[in-house]
Amino acid sequence: MSDKYQQLRELLGEIFDLEAASAVLHWDQRTYMPPGGNSVRALQIATLKRLAHEKFTSDELGATLEAAKAEVSSLDPDSDEVRVVQKVERDFDRKRKVPTKWVSEFFRITALTEHAWVKARANADFAQFQPHLEEVVELRRQYIEFFAPYDHPYDPLLDYFEPGMKTSEVKAVFNELRPRQVDLVQDIAERGTPVDGSMLHQPFDEGKQWDFGVEVAKALGYDFERGRQDKTIHPFTIGFGVDDVRITTRFDPNYLGTALFGTMHEAGHAMYGQGVSPNLDRTNLIEGASLGIHESQSRMMENLVGRSRPFWVAFYPRLQEVFPSQLGEVDLESFYRAINKVERSLIRVEADEATYNLHIMLRFEIETALMEGKISVGELPEIWNSKMEEYLGILPPDDAKGVLQDVHWSSGYIGYFPTYALGNLMASQLWIKIEEDIPNLSRQIERGEFGDLLAWLRENIHQHGAKFEPMELLQRVTGSGLSAEPYMRYLRNKYTDIYKLS
Amino acid sequence: MSDKYQQLRELLGEIFDLEAASAVLHWDQRTYMPPGGNSVRALQIATLKRLAHEKFTSDELGATLEAAKAEVSSLDPDSDEVRVVQKVERDFDRKRKVPTKWVSEFFRITALTEHAWVKARANADFAQFQPHLEEVVELRRQYIEFFAPYDHPYDPLLDYFEPGMKTSEVKAVFNELRPRQVDLVQDIAERGTPVDGSMLHQPFDEGKQWDFGVEVAKALGYDFERGRQDKTIHPFTIGFGVDDVRITTRFDPNYLGTALFGTMHEAGHAMYGQGVSPNLDRTNLIEGASLGIHESQSRMMENLVGRSRPFWVAFYPRLQEVFPSQLGEVDLESFYRAINKVERSLIRVEADEATYNLHIMLRFEIETALMEGKISVGELPEIWNSKMEEYLGILPPDDAKGVLQDVHWSSGYIGYFPTYALGNLMASQLWIKIEEDIPNLSRQIERGEFGDLLAWLRENIHQHGAKFEPMELLQRVTGSGLSAEPYMRYLRNKYTDIYKLS
Repeated sequence: MSDKYQQLRELLGEIFDLEAASAVLHWDQRTYMPPGGNSVRALQIATLKRLAHEKFTSDELGATLEAAKAEVSSLDPDSDEVRVVQKVERDFDRKRKVPTKWVSEFFRITALTEHAWVKARANADFAQFQPHLEEVVELRRQYIEFFAPYDHPYDPLLDYFEPGMKTSEVKAVFNELRPRQVDLVQDIAERGTPVDGSMLHQPFDEGKQWDFGVEVAKALGYDFERGRQDKTIHPFTIGFGVDDVRITTRFDPNYLGTALFGTMHEAGHAMYGQGVSPNLDRTNLIEGASLGIHESQSRMMENLVGRSRPFWVAFYPRLQEVFPSQLGEVDLESFYRAINKVERSLIRVEADEATYNLHIMLRFEIETALMEGKISVGELPEIWNSKMEEYLGILPPDDAKGVLQDVHWSSGYIGYFPTYALGNLMASQLWIKIEEDIPNLSRQIERGEFGDLLAWLRENIHQHGAKFEPMELLQRVTGSGLSAEPYMRYLRNKYTDIYKLS
Repeated sequence: MSDKYQQLRELLGEIFDLEAASAVLHWDQRTYMPPGGNSVRALQIATLKRLAHEKFTSDELGATLEAAKAEVSSLDPDSDEVRVVQKVERDFDRKRKVPTKWVSEFFRITALTEHAWVKARANADFAQFQPHLEEVVELRRQYIEFFAPYDHPYDPLLDYFEPGMKTSEVKAVFNELRPRQVDLVQDIAERGTPVDGSMLHQPFDEGKQWDFGVEVAKALGYDFERGRQDKTIHPFTIGFGVDDVRITTRFDPNYLGTALFGTMHEAGHAMYGQGVSPNLDRTNLIEGASLGIHESQSRMMENLVGRSRPFWVAFYPRLQEVFPSQLGEVDLESFYRAINKVERSLIRVEADEATYNLHIMLRFEIETALMEGKISVGELPEIWNSKMEEYLGILPPDDAKGVLQDVHWSSGYIGYFPTYALGNLMASQLWIKIEEDIPNLSRQIERGEFGDLLAWLRENIHQHGAKFEPMELLQRVTGSGLSAEPYMRYLRNKYTDIYKLS
């Protein structure tokens, strides 16, 4: 269309190319790169990130942005043009506060830190990781100061992942959630009819796990012509454009749940990425509205769909066919209860829905205390373990299963964890609306049909990318703001049934 | 050391990071990228290449180069510092002639053209590829004009791959070679004792081919901690730094030679890349002196080592162990003769040493005629086929096995092919010197020991990267310039023995 807007898109396209290239280098680093490649790779990623940052915060982009803004001012306020300009303006203002030198240093350090984390985790040795994490925390403290004044030092970190969200809002909603989730877990432990999950813990051929996961991901709607799956220690989704969005999965040869629900989780993210309007390709809007909204998509596929009874009505016979010796004698109901077994367990990514948010709250409390300067990095293993005991009544046998389990901090991602819990809440809020709009959804899922669900998600969430801020999007789609109520109702209903609590 | 030189290295480091990122994107495009990724990938690569070009040809680099040049002028003329400055100056002058707009367009077009080539080759349909190749040729014609005046329009293309080499020199050496190679092939056909190569054409399990290839590559000295192997249609070697140099290999389930000699060939390239001095990392000097010198390393491993009797004294028992039903009954001598069977065959990459250069001359003649404007792209299949008949007496059954067989033109690489033949010649020249310096080399190879050979190559060739131009390097190491004589003597001796010609 218009001249200045087109100029803006060209500048964004170039920046996006650098960001996408950096993402390919990241993907390669975590999947196939030989060990020797690591030190130069860190420099390469730092250079790309620095150039992208320089270009995004350049006076040229600023001037073009101003001109484009004037040019599109008479268009529909929800048009791509107006929303792209708004999003770029917001990011421009934010990124201008951060010196290029810091960006370059941050990406150079974190590329190395991630590598150190992999080793430290393999050795279950926090001391080995501590100096690296201290560097990251120091960098993040510097970052926070670029945004002073703030209500809370954690605000600028949270805002990076969840635009517009405040630490105080997260604290409020977590305070509402915590006692109710603790109650539920306690009820289940004290009054629930025990669930046998042992059939999931057997040897399962990795190749067959892989194939079944692919089958499920395809059925859900993940397009392998525009994506692919690879193996990594820590699973993730990464996109280099709307037509190349990849997932990775971790396989456990002795536990079915890891890869199965991991693949569904990542497919949920990836379908979001593949569903963004092509009009937004080669802009930063393809990243989605926020990590919380992104998690609403992945947790929806993993849990609301993937851990539901209707889903396994469709897929359990097929799974039994693939693993006859392990599951041939296990009936659907026993399997359904097993995949929803509530356990006070160590690993977040494998936690059930009842305990999951407790893992998040623990991390959120540690992160906010770190940023408030109330605790130091060296104290983390001890604090981690004591909180695990307090919330879940268990103690990690070592740091690999404790404070070292997640990649996030090594990547410099502080402020990221709460978005998982927000995603859980939003998924339940969206699901109520989806069930209203697709009245026979359960029956469709029982037949393995996900076309209407995907179409709904595309229409209401995916296509928009980051055109709307997360709370605006939620409001537009569900008619209300963030709420813990639907999620708690969903959990209470689900586990009352499974654990026969009533 | 010095201030301005360090500044230059920092600028080069940034440019190298962009080039390396672009190489990772290329590697990914050819190995793992899903089909959907292609169109945006082309734009991403074009952006990276354009930015690298802009930075390399910037006034800032020019000024820093001048200052660094003055600063290092009193140092040893063979020091890294002086040679880096010289190489950068030469490339700066060359690249300044080429407009950034052309570079961007070239890499955008060729990324798409390569994809079109893959399809056209699969369909054996030249017509489908023709418009793309016409674009590439037109771009190359424009490129040539940036370097006017020139002795021959092919000179600027050749110089890109083989710095300092002239079309007239290649013509002269090819004119010397052609009749002697044709004579040899004719002698073999008329007077040679027939060789049975049929045992190589059987089903060979791909996984076992892979494992044996890796074993051989490791023995030769290719370091998998700083490299890796993947599968592609067209094999290649690519480096992202001296500590991450990767190879790819093509596997034919019914012919042992493709992967086996392909892996050795690429390992030869990759060992060069891994052997460049770390002092030269993050500069354009890690690419090696020229493609001809690079081919001297790959063809040496593939042929002078890999198709030699001593090599198979070491490895044949092991190969028989891996493929007992196919080779258990075949004796070493029969196997050795089979892998050196001379055939008038269609595919360059699988051609024997006696006919290989004829494949190259055919391509060189077509390329020079194209650039002289004497033939058009539409005529290529016809000309290809008639030259195949003239030089080798055979006619491709379709274009996939004819004019479409190589990836080079689709990548915009015109002027590349002659370097293969130059590599053959230089490998033989180097080998004479190596045998002088390592008198018991044959015995070492018979024992599967390649340490002295690799150390010699590291010392004399690899470590220098592009510090010396190819002819200077050859002169320094062998004491003489380019010569067809050693290669022809080597071929004549080898085939006189194998075909019992004397």
